[in-house]
Amino acid sequence: MVELVREALHSSVTDPRSASMNFLNEVASRFPAAISLAAGRPFDEFYAVEDVERYLAAYVGYLRAQGMGEAGVRQAILQYGRTNGQLGAMIARMLEIDEDIRVPAESVMVTSGCQEAMIIALRGLCAGPEDVVLAAEPCYVGFSGAARVLGITVVPVPETAQGLRPETVARVAREVRASDRRPRALYVVSNFANPSGVSLSAGMRRGLIEVAGDQDLLILEDDPYGLFGLDDRRSPALKSLDTDHRVIYLGSFAKSVFPGARVGFLVADQTVVSAAGQRSLLTDELSTVKSMITVNTSPIAQAVIGGVLVSCGYSLRTANREKIAFYRRNLRTLLAALERHFSDPAITWNSPSGGFFAVLDAGVRADEKLLELSARDYGVLWTPMSFFYTGGGGSHAIRLSCSALTTDQIDEGVRRLAALIAGVRS
Amino acid sequence: MVELVREALHSSVTDPRSASMNFLNEVASRFPAAISLAAGRPFDEFYAVEDVERYLAAYVGYLRAQGMGEAGVRQAILQYGRTNGQLGAMIARMLEIDEDIRVPAESVMVTSGCQEAMIIALRGLCAGPEDVVLAAEPCYVGFSGAARVLGITVVPVPETAQGLRPETVARVAREVRASDRRPRALYVVSNFANPSGVSLSAGMRRGLIEVAGDQDLLILEDDPYGLFGLDDRRSPALKSLDTDHRVIYLGSFAKSVFPGARVGFLVADQTVVSAAGQRSLLTDELSTVKSMITVNTSPIAQAVIGGVLVSCGYSLRTANREKIAFYRRNLRTLLAALERHFSDPAITWNSPSGGFFAVLDAGVRADEKLLELSARDYGVLWTPMSFFYTGGGGSHAIRLSCSALTTDQIDEGVRRLAALIAGVRS
Repeated sequence: MVELVREALHSSVTDPRSASMNFLNEVASRFPAAISLAAGRPFDEFYAVEDVERYLAAYVGYLRAQGMGEAGVRQAILQYGRTNGQLGAMIARMLEIDEDIRVPAESVMVTSGCQEAMIIALRGLCAGPEDVVLAAEPCYVGFSGAARVLGITVVPVPETAQGLRPETVARVAREVRASDRRPRALYVVSNFANPSGVSLSAGMRRGLIEVAGDQDLLILEDDPYGLFGLDDRRSPALKSLDTDHRVIYLGSFAKSVFPGARVGFLVADQTVVSAAGQRSLLTDELSTVKSMITVNTSPIAQAVIGGVLVSCGYSLRTANREKIAFYRRNLRTLLAALERHFSDPAITWNSPSGGFFAVLDAGVRADEKLLELSARDYGVLWTPMSFFYTGGGGSHAIRLSCSALTTDQIDEGVRRLAALIAGVRS
Repeated sequence: MVELVREALHSSVTDPRSASMNFLNEVASRFPAAISLAAGRPFDEFYAVEDVERYLAAYVGYLRAQGMGEAGVRQAILQYGRTNGQLGAMIARMLEIDEDIRVPAESVMVTSGCQEAMIIALRGLCAGPEDVVLAAEPCYVGFSGAARVLGITVVPVPETAQGLRPETVARVAREVRASDRRPRALYVVSNFANPSGVSLSAGMRRGLIEVAGDQDLLILEDDPYGLFGLDDRRSPALKSLDTDHRVIYLGSFAKSVFPGARVGFLVADQTVVSAAGQRSLLTDELSTVKSMITVNTSPIAQAVIGGVLVSCGYSLRTANREKIAFYRRNLRTLLAALERHFSDPAITWNSPSGGFFAVLDAGVRADEKLLELSARDYGVLWTPMSFFYTGGGGSHAIRLSCSALTTDQIDEGVRRLAALIAGVRS
């Protein structure tokens, strides 16, 4: 019987950061009764299974109303389809209504979740080992993981409590160039980032666009949580400020609709010019990569999302009123619970203005050993912030998520966490 | 306005073979009335849109019958799910019934189409530039394209009219090793290959398994067309002969169900041993890669395929009786039309024993220029075989596909093709 050597597999398989996430899942499965302040998934009682059929029917109805015959509808839902998908016009309309982003329908590529959008953009932009990407750190593990699969170096740009400073981005970009590498893009979550909860101020947004121009960078803007601010104030999407076409926008329907569709998208309205002078759209160039990863995004899944968009008049902001209220209440509950259960002034936390996450500086080493103890003896799970750093950092910090719980669970989870930390510190 | 330099994008974007496939699509769109002997997609009148809801309901019914409550069903369909998917047991059962392949459910990973299965297997197995894969040539463009996205070298092993000779595989593997590279796996389509239509004889199958052992190779067995033989004789899947666990099986539901689900799978029941002596299943190791490409395969799409499997008693062979008859008739029609319309003994073709494709040696240069002439003046499309070779080859050969047409269209398409070639040769 053949036995494969684990160390001979690709480094993205054996990377210790993958092991970390596996450890988290494994602890969660060993202590199923523990309250999970680790799980960042959306709450799952907003939709019923029957909604899938309803939205599918809404999309089919839309296609028929456009004059499409039965053969056309059948092909649209059951056949292979256009590599870049069939929802471009609907998504462009949604972006204009919800985000004041104006882009042509043909610049939208529908992807198998936002994860695929990241890997496609990374693959297209980075041609060789000298091409690197910058990313705000702490960084979403899906982005750094996608880069690892492709062997692309991610250069961290330290995020501050106030967001990502444009001057720091410029400095890191210059350092990268000085080391004979080419910084191709900056990855940033504009609102209520995972894991930090931090958002970019309006001034920073303008500054980042400017730095991208100065440093010849593209920006990969990821905004899965933007709908879920604590109040109705909105900061402009980087893409809405992007007069120079520096921003590739990465979109997700996992939080605004539901994760089970696995539909995301990217907008790449940049012009590409070949040595022979031929001009094309970056989205069209990237379709070659998409075709070699998943051929196209499941038309059935696209149809469900299309049905949602048709049904809500292309405004996810409108469609998500109930969810927005729910996540606001949960985040307020989390912040109030931290206030209630932590009285030691040495222990601090941030106060994100929206989203699913907050970060606690626990004053103790928040490592896998503490997590195991926490799950076993205190019945609460959380995520060590060190998982989100490439070269060390976050060793005493904890990511707390409040998206998948009831308010009672959040309060009780934080109470248990406070008991754990008090126990360890005493 | 930023302009990106096309030549600075990744080579998988700018590779001339991508341009070839784009050219084919572009010609097809310019001459929509032409009969397409190029399109290898399944015929699309076997299912109606309503079947999607029916199969979804069948899967939900199955989950409920297993005792799953509403919350569980809702999570299964609408939430993120297990990275490796939820159809492992059903697919293992189907493989046993249809293919005499016996594998544990946990060795199955559900993927976003077979394309993703290829890219995941390639990524996991190839760690550095010294790791290469062998592939039968002419080669399916999806496989060579996936390797290009990852920068993995594909070393061609010439296929003969009788299939892939084990001794040739052994020779190429030795040559690769002699050049200080490591041959990790051999990619082969066991039945009615795309593009050549060629199948492996039973002896070759046993020989390939033996060579894989001798040369320490894995085999990536791809079998999207195996159901569609001209008669009921079946050759054993390489995976069914795989007592030594050398074969990773790649599966597709695109032809046996419909492409719009975009559900495929891989079976990797190999044991992986770490330096520390820990043992794991290759499928579980590969799940790290899967999680960084698409997180997991759309549970909605999985549910539709699960509903099909439940409804057919886990036998796609049984469920596909009507399709099998249809594709048999189409391939027989293609071969008869070639007989009827080509009388010049200098022009020859092969006679595949099943599948969607046959190859014509046209006796003239079958390049993009001829294809354009063919579409414009003769109203027939086909695929130059040169598209399927890495380093030249197939310059005078044509791939003919008969899957997406009626018998009348096939006959008329071949008649037009004969007129084209007669015109060029005269």
